[in-house]
Amino acid sequence: MKKLINEPEHVVYEELHGIAAAHHDLVEVCFDPNYIVRRDVPLKGKVGIVSGGGSGHEPMHGGFVGYGMLDAACPGAVFTSPTPDQMLEATKRVNAGAGVLHIVKNYTGDIMNFEMAADLARDQGIEVESVVINDDVAVEDSLYTAGRRGVGATVLAEKICGAAAEARRSLKDVADICRKVNDRSRSMGMALTSCIVPHAGKPTFSLAEDEMEIGIGIHGEPGRTRMKLKPADEIGVLLMTPIISDLPYKNGDEVLLFVNGMGGTPLMELYVIYNRAYEIATRNELKVSRNLIGSYITSLEMAGCSITLLKLDDELTRFWDAPVRTAALRWGM
Amino acid sequence: MKKLINEPEHVVYEELHGIAAAHHDLVEVCFDPNYIVRRDVPLKGKVGIVSGGGSGHEPMHGGFVGYGMLDAACPGAVFTSPTPDQMLEATKRVNAGAGVLHIVKNYTGDIMNFEMAADLARDQGIEVESVVINDDVAVEDSLYTAGRRGVGATVLAEKICGAAAEARRSLKDVADICRKVNDRSRSMGMALTSCIVPHAGKPTFSLAEDEMEIGIGIHGEPGRTRMKLKPADEIGVLLMTPIISDLPYKNGDEVLLFVNGMGGTPLMELYVIYNRAYEIATRNELKVSRNLIGSYITSLEMAGCSITLLKLDDELTRFWDAPVRTAALRWGM
Repeated sequence: MKKLINEPEHVVYEELHGIAAAHHDLVEVCFDPNYIVRRDVPLKGKVGIVSGGGSGHEPMHGGFVGYGMLDAACPGAVFTSPTPDQMLEATKRVNAGAGVLHIVKNYTGDIMNFEMAADLARDQGIEVESVVINDDVAVEDSLYTAGRRGVGATVLAEKICGAAAEARRSLKDVADICRKVNDRSRSMGMALTSCIVPHAGKPTFSLAEDEMEIGIGIHGEPGRTRMKLKPADEIGVLLMTPIISDLPYKNGDEVLLFVNGMGGTPLMELYVIYNRAYEIATRNELKVSRNLIGSYITSLEMAGCSITLLKLDDELTRFWDAPVRTAALRWGM
Repeated sequence: MKKLINEPEHVVYEELHGIAAAHHDLVEVCFDPNYIVRRDVPLKGKVGIVSGGGSGHEPMHGGFVGYGMLDAACPGAVFTSPTPDQMLEATKRVNAGAGVLHIVKNYTGDIMNFEMAADLARDQGIEVESVVINDDVAVEDSLYTAGRRGVGATVLAEKICGAAAEARRSLKDVADICRKVNDRSRSMGMALTSCIVPHAGKPTFSLAEDEMEIGIGIHGEPGRTRMKLKPADEIGVLLMTPIISDLPYKNGDEVLLFVNGMGGTPLMELYVIYNRAYEIATRNELKVSRNLIGSYITSLEMAGCSITLLKLDDELTRFWDAPVRTAALRWGM
């Protein structure tokens, strides 16, 4: 196992200290229970937004804490759900009386623990709404999931809901916007290699030198099919076809096209995939009016990519374009 | 060879088409000869800044074209210097009468071709200054270099000089600031794995499962030493010690600490390294007042990292903080 780490059991702890040292102008990192929180919370009249999940998907979610996106993020151990006490403390910390939205990726542990935290927060008089993200068209049920997995749409939902909350929309509104982003998003991923979970020390799965896995999950969960490695142009078709046919997107729809790296894939290759995905979208008469290209929801050092398509409308576009200032996404300020 | 590409010989061409499709609001991509240029050049009274080098180091340099950074970037084939005609066309295109600065990494081919392009541009009446970046303390001479290699300081010089040019500083001033950034920067890198050049199809070098290479170059050029894999804390010492002792930095100096991923290393590990590098800097009584963490000057999918330290002063800090809007670095706008 080749990684830039010390003891596997200290990875998340040391990473959080690195984030604290690097981004103390933006965030505070709290320990026991662990969460990353905006320095300026609670913000009067503003809905708080909390997300979280296992570590190993960086920059998601901790890199998205800041103005115009998340108020707090709860990192679990690698590929392990955070605990209800992390979520509860983060929820209490960001609550300014306007309520708190939990954005939850559809994994059984995340769902269960966020539900428990929401109940505990409500017992303390905090209004909480939860929205579950389940945009992955690859498989119906999966290793850690009943129903579809939550993947790339999470990044888009966190950005767009963050802007809505910054505009002082109500909790009900921000939650509705989150559901709208989820309803209008579809994703699919693929892997060229497995990742290695630090405390496991060996690859999560094995792929031969000439194989790839289509429909992979962000924890290395099995996808739709394992097949011989294909050129990028064919991979683009294999990812885009189920996405476009699932919603379905209609001619003339404006979309945001998000090409995401899994952690070990260089930007050069993401642009090759983007080139093909853009061409397929255009040929299907979708208008790609916004995009995001880079490694934002990752799977440790896995090589591969995912594609997410979000059908935009004026409201979503406006909130996407709104200023954001986090460690990983920043524009307009 | 597992990559998200089509034919190896078309990688750069398809990547450039992907960049054109993704970032047409910021840049125009020109072909034959290839260069990426700001949409709004030439800009009256502004020094033009052109850089370039082999592809495979993305987002450098093409991802740095835009307001407050580069006016144009010339991408060569993978790990191959761009040609003088690319540099000449880019130079002519961005020239607005205030002269053009070439920022050149110290590799023999880049130096030779940028010199030729500068001579040709001068023949056409364009004032050109060239600054060579050579911040890598690892080795004195190297596979493609006489003297020290140019690495991480290039990213910092492009940002800082871009801000100076945006502030309408003269060509002489912008070139002097570039030399100052180079003089006050030191870098060192390491690799856990080799990269694979697409048209070669096999690893550039081989490292055993328990080995790492300290002092590696961004094309996989040999470093100082190959040794057994060490924990991140020891890697931090192996990189920071030669950097700090080389300048030398003095107690109380303000520095920018740049932890860079080589392409295949996830952000989680970069924060573990940042945590250690920050601690070493602080223990040496350096004040880390700015930072950059991410994969900005890469070596395809190589796993590893580099550290760059820049001794700041008020002028450099002000230009670092100035607004920038490019595909890869964006803040303040």
